[in-house]
Amino acid sequence: MSNRIITISREFGSGGRTIGKEVAERLGIPCYDQEIIDKIAEESGLAKEFIKERGEYAASSSWWQSVSTGRDYYGHSQQDDLWRMQTKVILDLAEKGPCVIVGRCADFILRNRADCLTVFIHASMAKRAERIVNVYGEGNEDPEKRLHDKDKRRKAYYEMYTDTKWGVARNYHIALDSGALGIEKTC
Amino acid sequence: MSNRIITISREFGSGGRTIGKEVAERLGIPCYDQEIIDKIAEESGLAKEFIKERGEYAASSSWWQSVSTGRDYYGHSQQDDLWRMQTKVILDLAEKGPCVIVGRCADFILRNRADCLTVFIHASMAKRAERIVNVYGEGNEDPEKRLHDKDKRRKAYYEMYTDTKWGVARNYHIALDSGALGIEKTC
Repeated sequence: MSNRIITISREFGSGGRTIGKEVAERLGIPCYDQEIIDKIAEESGLAKEFIKERGEYAASSSWWQSVSTGRDYYGHSQQDDLWRMQTKVILDLAEKGPCVIVGRCADFILRNRADCLTVFIHASMAKRAERIVNVYGEGNEDPEKRLHDKDKRRKAYYEMYTDTKWGVARNYHIALDSGALGIEKTC
Repeated sequence: MSNRIITISREFGSGGRTIGKEVAERLGIPCYDQEIIDKIAEESGLAKEFIKERGEYAASSSWWQSVSTGRDYYGHSQQDDLWRMQTKVILDLAEKGPCVIVGRCADFILRNRADCLTVFIHASMAKRAERIVNVYGEGNEDPEKRLHDKDKRRKAYYEMYTDTKWGVARNYHIALDSGALGIEKTC
């Protein structure tokens, strides 16, 4: 298998985005992350914050209320439209040439391409809590509770749209613990 | 983290044993696999075939009958005794010096050692079926059915004794798809 595209799925706080950018730089290819959000915003007129949040996370209970009332007669929601746009943007990017794509279920969306290497980055709760406080600059108050919520909603989103289990080793070519290995070794 | 011990958990037919032996050879350290069975046989008097089968696999229905009748008044079975012996042998081997240990829940047994790198090797059903027929020389008749049975019983054994999910990426430092990457690249 010759790989032209690397998808990086990651637990929040594992440093997956940093790893994706570093790997892309070493390989001299683009890394798509924020670009996907910008492109969908441009084409759809949706707010970037909405795309960022609802393109990877299932609704929390307050979100859920807004979504359930936002569903049309056929049960469609704005989140379903976003999924379709996101799928199209990722398929188009993969056609353009070698690249790294971070998050947004790209591993599933590109699963039928033989030239796609799928990677999953994870780390222990303690390591991720340390990272979101010290590197991302989030508040120090109970970071593990926020991580639990993020994990739960990212998993639910992934499983809803892909019908595939999140975080199961056999769904990825390579899965790495960036907390134990360190960011540099993981790259 | 400086790693002295590598544990290799693997799906049946993924080539995990071959990979373990090759990695150990490259690092110039021993690889324990059959040696664990020999050692338990020597100390316990149990048959090697029983140790090999019941030290990694939950009982199939016919096995189950023999085990359930084999449980004593307190609910102990010979398989529980085997688990305790296996745990002791693996802890002792880890004390002896750097090594690779294949299978037998060594990742869980050594989970509290900071110098232990845990690896999981998996591959698609098709790649594993091909391997057990062409490399292990098993019969050509419905190899996927045999793999399903092996997977189910290995998972059940692991989860019964470790209370941890089998094959979940976050339980291993490194998980690799030997079918997609190839044995050589995985090593």
